[in-house]
Amino acid sequence: MNKVLIVGSIGLDSLKTPFGEKDNVLGGSVSYASIAASLFSKVNMVGVVGEDFPQKYIDLFKSRSINTNGLEFRSGNTFKWSGYYEYDMNQAHTVDTQLNVFADFNPVLPDEYLDSEFVFLANIHPSLQLKVLDQIKYPKFIMLDTMNLWISTTKNELLEVIKRVNLVLLNDGEARQLCGTPNLVVAAKKVLDMGPEYVVIKKGEHGALLFSKSGEVFSSPAYPIEIIKDPTGAGDTFAGGFIGYLSQVDEINNVEMRKAIVIGSTLASYTAEEFSLDKLKTITLRQLNERYCEFESLAKFESLDLVPVS
Amino acid sequence: MNKVLIVGSIGLDSLKTPFGEKDNVLGGSVSYASIAASLFSKVNMVGVVGEDFPQKYIDLFKSRSINTNGLEFRSGNTFKWSGYYEYDMNQAHTVDTQLNVFADFNPVLPDEYLDSEFVFLANIHPSLQLKVLDQIKYPKFIMLDTMNLWISTTKNELLEVIKRVNLVLLNDGEARQLCGTPNLVVAAKKVLDMGPEYVVIKKGEHGALLFSKSGEVFSSPAYPIEIIKDPTGAGDTFAGGFIGYLSQVDEINNVEMRKAIVIGSTLASYTAEEFSLDKLKTITLRQLNERYCEFESLAKFESLDLVPVS
Repeated sequence: MNKVLIVGSIGLDSLKTPFGEKDNVLGGSVSYASIAASLFSKVNMVGVVGEDFPQKYIDLFKSRSINTNGLEFRSGNTFKWSGYYEYDMNQAHTVDTQLNVFADFNPVLPDEYLDSEFVFLANIHPSLQLKVLDQIKYPKFIMLDTMNLWISTTKNELLEVIKRVNLVLLNDGEARQLCGTPNLVVAAKKVLDMGPEYVVIKKGEHGALLFSKSGEVFSSPAYPIEIIKDPTGAGDTFAGGFIGYLSQVDEINNVEMRKAIVIGSTLASYTAEEFSLDKLKTITLRQLNERYCEFESLAKFESLDLVPVS
Repeated sequence: MNKVLIVGSIGLDSLKTPFGEKDNVLGGSVSYASIAASLFSKVNMVGVVGEDFPQKYIDLFKSRSINTNGLEFRSGNTFKWSGYYEYDMNQAHTVDTQLNVFADFNPVLPDEYLDSEFVFLANIHPSLQLKVLDQIKYPKFIMLDTMNLWISTTKNELLEVIKRVNLVLLNDGEARQLCGTPNLVVAAKKVLDMGPEYVVIKKGEHGALLFSKSGEVFSSPAYPIEIIKDPTGAGDTFAGGFIGYLSQVDEINNVEMRKAIVIGSTLASYTAEEFSLDKLKTITLRQLNERYCEFESLAKFESLDLVPVS
């Protein structure tokens, strides 16, 4: 079984949505992505937590056979984010961010991680992402996430990372910002010119677009859900499910990439249905498969037989 | 061949986009929808124009075998809209609206229109839409469009119309406004509770959602286009292609509804590629079919064979 290395933030989130309020619940890109990826693969987790990090969350990771040897425990508090969602649930509003032990995060990989073939560089400072890449010995597929802050403050370093990865994951706003164009097709082509073989543009409730250097385009709708309680972590869940699935296919090709996107979207829809990882952590491969089938049936349409194509 | 009746606005648009500027070019919901529908069906057009309306546009309608006997010519000027699109092309900004002869629009159908089985009530005052419905003798499928203005100013009359139609077409903003919820799945269910059998929510560059009383959900991506020169009329093109196609199928069912949505989206993508109807009017069934095939290939994904569904 290929191992997926996932590096990024681990945090304790406090948040308020129209559906309730939670304090100090498990959050962070690594948490969501690792639990999602662990449905398919062994996961090597890299992150840092403080003394206040509850044992029950470590137990959760371990229950999914996630390797936590790359999880650093430091004195001090865990990274904390607090925020709220308004009625439309589309955008998180940050109330407070306390970096705490995450401020000095310096990802050093345990030896046993160095042969990880699949790597998800979740959103952290590009210089740290580069540092992780420098340690990996036999990378087969590297996927990168980032955020608007790094696009505006450390663009050159970010471009360095982009050059070295196989796939760049951006949301639509980031794609527009990075490429200076409102058109997502144009933006995607510009990202491909920066080096990577693939770019995936996440559009939240509107699905995702995949573009590849080979000219492949895949437009995936999102799974329409009626109850969105907490969209935090949906993007990281998408990423984790995506790379987890990809790590165990026989051959990475466009057919598998498309499936990986739908799997990512399906898992992300579960994440949004409850706070924190409350729903995601309960999802089995069987449930994933069932919703994937629903996804298929809601996205499919028949060929047109009006006119024969020449 | 079933006849499709289309009633709404016919106008002369003056607009500016980052790709150029046009003065007094053909616009209005009826123009876009009729040209799109005429690919599939005989169209009975209902609208009003003034003395300044260029003969070449009448000739265009006639070249598509569109029946213009329901087109009223009045003294005065044609409805005029001027506006601009900014860099992101997502929203039209209105500079000026001159209703002119459209202010007293009173749709009286010629006798030869009264047996139209398919009706598209494009966006006009709900009381005028009701008036059209009262004249139709054997309606088989009625599709309704509207706008934010009528939702806020004449909601009761609008609800009267909604009760009497088979399908309501809304953009995402209108759906949220009409139903008082940000969630489109919830909004769609509320619209279905108002009477119609189907609701289609248009999401612009993000595709469309179809919901039916039978529980059917279809999530269609949009065709990703690189050059959007002028999105004006894309929604009406969608509607015209949709109802035109539907008017000639053997049986209206969910399979055909899905195809109709993809046809509408495909035609809308052509509309946005040039100003006014410049591109749409050149599109043949063969071209439509070709892009429909591309649409199929960019939206399709394989089944998952990880786990058998129980």
